Amino acid sequence: MNEVLEKAKLAKSAASKLAKLSTNVKDKALEMMAQALEAQAEFIIEANKLDVEAATQSGRHKAFIDRLTLNEQRIKAMADGLREIKQLPDPVGETVAMWKRPNGLQIAQRRVPLGVIGIIYESRPNVTADAAGLCLKTGNAVILRGSSEAIQSNKAIVKVLSQAASEAGVPKGAIQLIEDTDRASARQLMKLNGLVDVLIPRGGAGLIKAVIEEATVPVIETGVGNCHVYVDGQCDKDMAIKIVVNAKTQRPGVCNAAETLLVDRKIAAEFLPVVVKELREKGVEIRGCEKTLKIIPDAVPATQEDWNTEYLDYILAVKIVDGIDEAIAHIERHGSGHSEAIVTDNYFAAQRFLDEVDAAAVYVNASTRFTDGFEFGFGAEIGISTQKLHARGPMGLKELTTIKYVVYGNGQVRE
Amino acid sequence: MNEVLEKAKLAKSAASKLAKLSTNVKDKALEMMAQALEAQAEFIIEANKLDVEAATQSGRHKAFIDRLTLNEQRIKAMADGLREIKQLPDPVGETVAMWKRPNGLQIAQRRVPLGVIGIIYESRPNVTADAAGLCLKTGNAVILRGSSEAIQSNKAIVKVLSQAASEAGVPKGAIQLIEDTDRASARQLMKLNGLVDVLIPRGGAGLIKAVIEEATVPVIETGVGNCHVYVDGQCDKDMAIKIVVNAKTQRPGVCNAAETLLVDRKIAAEFLPVVVKELREKGVEIRGCEKTLKIIPDAVPATQEDWNTEYLDYILAVKIVDGIDEAIAHIERHGSGHSEAIVTDNYFAAQRFLDEVDAAAVYVNASTRFTDGFEFGFGAEIGISTQKLHARGPMGLKELTTIKYVVYGNGQVRE
Repeated sequence: MNEVLEKAKLAKSAASKLAKLSTNVKDKALEMMAQALEAQAEFIIEANKLDVEAATQSGRHKAFIDRLTLNEQRIKAMADGLREIKQLPDPVGETVAMWKRPNGLQIAQRRVPLGVIGIIYESRPNVTADAAGLCLKTGNAVILRGSSEAIQSNKAIVKVLSQAASEAGVPKGAIQLIEDTDRASARQLMKLNGLVDVLIPRGGAGLIKAVIEEATVPVIETGVGNCHVYVDGQCDKDMAIKIVVNAKTQRPGVCNAAETLLVDRKIAAEFLPVVVKELREKGVEIRGCEKTLKIIPDAVPATQEDWNTEYLDYILAVKIVDGIDEAIAHIERHGSGHSEAIVTDNYFAAQRFLDEVDAAAVYVNASTRFTDGFEFGFGAEIGISTQKLHARGPMGLKELTTIKYVVYGNGQVRE
Repeated sequence: MNEVLEKAKLAKSAASKLAKLSTNVKDKALEMMAQALEAQAEFIIEANKLDVEAATQSGRHKAFIDRLTLNEQRIKAMADGLREIKQLPDPVGETVAMWKRPNGLQIAQRRVPLGVIGIIYESRPNVTADAAGLCLKTGNAVILRGSSEAIQSNKAIVKVLSQAASEAGVPKGAIQLIEDTDRASARQLMKLNGLVDVLIPRGGAGLIKAVIEEATVPVIETGVGNCHVYVDGQCDKDMAIKIVVNAKTQRPGVCNAAETLLVDRKIAAEFLPVVVKELREKGVEIRGCEKTLKIIPDAVPATQEDWNTEYLDYILAVKIVDGIDEAIAHIERHGSGHSEAIVTDNYFAAQRFLDEVDAAAVYVNASTRFTDGFEFGFGAEIGISTQKLHARGPMGLKELTTIKYVVYGNGQVRE
């Protein structure tokens, strides 16, 4: 039996034990896992050095090396993350609803773990601890499949975490890493229906697309965000500037950052020069539609492709639109259904935007950057779903559970 | 552009209009659709005759022909089904939860339609009206892909329904049938990510497996039920007999019927002869494990395959187990996660079974036959999910919706 199948079978058997584990044991394990990370930081950093050296030798760029690198402080942050998860309420066992039928049957909807969760991810080793903590808290077994570039780091982290968890009473197989980083191992994991209940890919658009296309196991699609801010003709211009600049520049490399600015033509001539000046001061390149170029002549002309691009960079596409109708139509055509915002003073424009724009999160008079499990108050986040099934938007602990119907009878049979 | 792509694009454009449609318009449409089915029953029956003739000529068995055949009464039942859906509360627009963050952001979780739902199904033409009604009520556009055997009936029904819906103000493209019944058309529908939001296959295990394997669009797995009744050593034997007989024979051809009886060895010698007598009087064939054969010598010896088989017929596999541990282990190994029941007087046995058995519905002292949207009180049912993502167990109107986050700000930006 190969590694993936063996680990998946062990995970399934662990899952049925994990589902019964008390919150006390799970929380104790999270604390011990945090302590173990801190105590064995040096061991993890030594392993991480091998990954960093290999990445440097193969000429990876600086940002990549930075994401890959672990140090005392980053390991402390991973440990703190586990302690934060420990503090959150355990969603497992909650009775979501319970009712009685005319025949006397009592039917309860009870929150239970999903079972076995596969996480397929790229080169951030902190995802390893984060995903392990979230899955453990929700009573799920996790199978981690990270990239080859982080394999030494991931092996060290999983070794430390699974040993600590085991000492706290967590069943063997609850936290496992696929050590074979060949593409075939990921592909095999994606097809283990009956053993794996859900796959959550975390990474770039290419990874996510590959998982969606190849998996037969249900997938939760995360991440791609081509987000818009629409500045309505009737709005507080200072607020609009603040929101546009924040949505674009507060952290451009993440999925809830804005990629396109839509401006109502009624205020474009007045508004654009001011907002562009502020954006350029932050280092943002402007790519404008034809009408924008008349107001900002030195902007880069936008192509059709720009409207569909998630730059994840200091670049903003700008389009002048003929009011809210064209803004909504543009978002419907080019948006990825992640986060969309309107800045307006007009009640009806606000209501229409919130009602009609089809996205995981729609905002009036706030930055798109708030689409995040922590900012929404969930206390944790395994990713941001951009699909409509199961979970949409930021996914916290509840989104890592499912329900089962628990039915109490006293002899009922169906007529 | 071919038929599937064209209809999917039209469905997507209809979906954004449907999401805004008032409950009044949707309910009026459902009533007009019901009336149109009744008024044009003869037209539908004429079309159905072509399907029935073709099926007869190709030597289809009687049960198949029966499922396919429409008459005045069955069309009336379809119309009544639409009127029942009309009576149900509209889940769209409900604010599931709303809260305020420390920074003043107000975040609401609002129930919205899924968008475009693809239904891939076999030869029951009543599914056509049923699925169209459920999707319309929940503001979803539906793309129906029925089997070639029912194509004339489906064409007639969709023609009548979509015309009536359109007269009531429902957008064009809300209810569509793929008329090309070649396998390639189903396969194409399964890969239309970005146009189709979810696929719900309805039919036999083969159909469902094919959809899961080929689809890149998210799928809700429905239907396969290898359900067990475990009769505990400590139980009301009369109640146990009533439940076992009901679970097996009240309607053997459906997914929530029992397929295997597990009996505690402590009471097997006393209980089995009585229950087998009653089952045989109803025409049930018994396939027993080795221990069962010692008590019921004329039972058919069960093979390993029997424990995994959904008979959907008057056949019951019987296994004697060494108490609840072996019963739970057997179900974990062979069950399909649909519906599982224990008959017991013992509090701890009941709690353990409900807690530990991993299935969409777990019962104590009631028949598995209750796993059904109507019996659960949902007033409707599009299918029974046996997967854990999005929906589990009977799926009513709510399960045909998703949520979006609606965020009200007054200038918030992220620090």
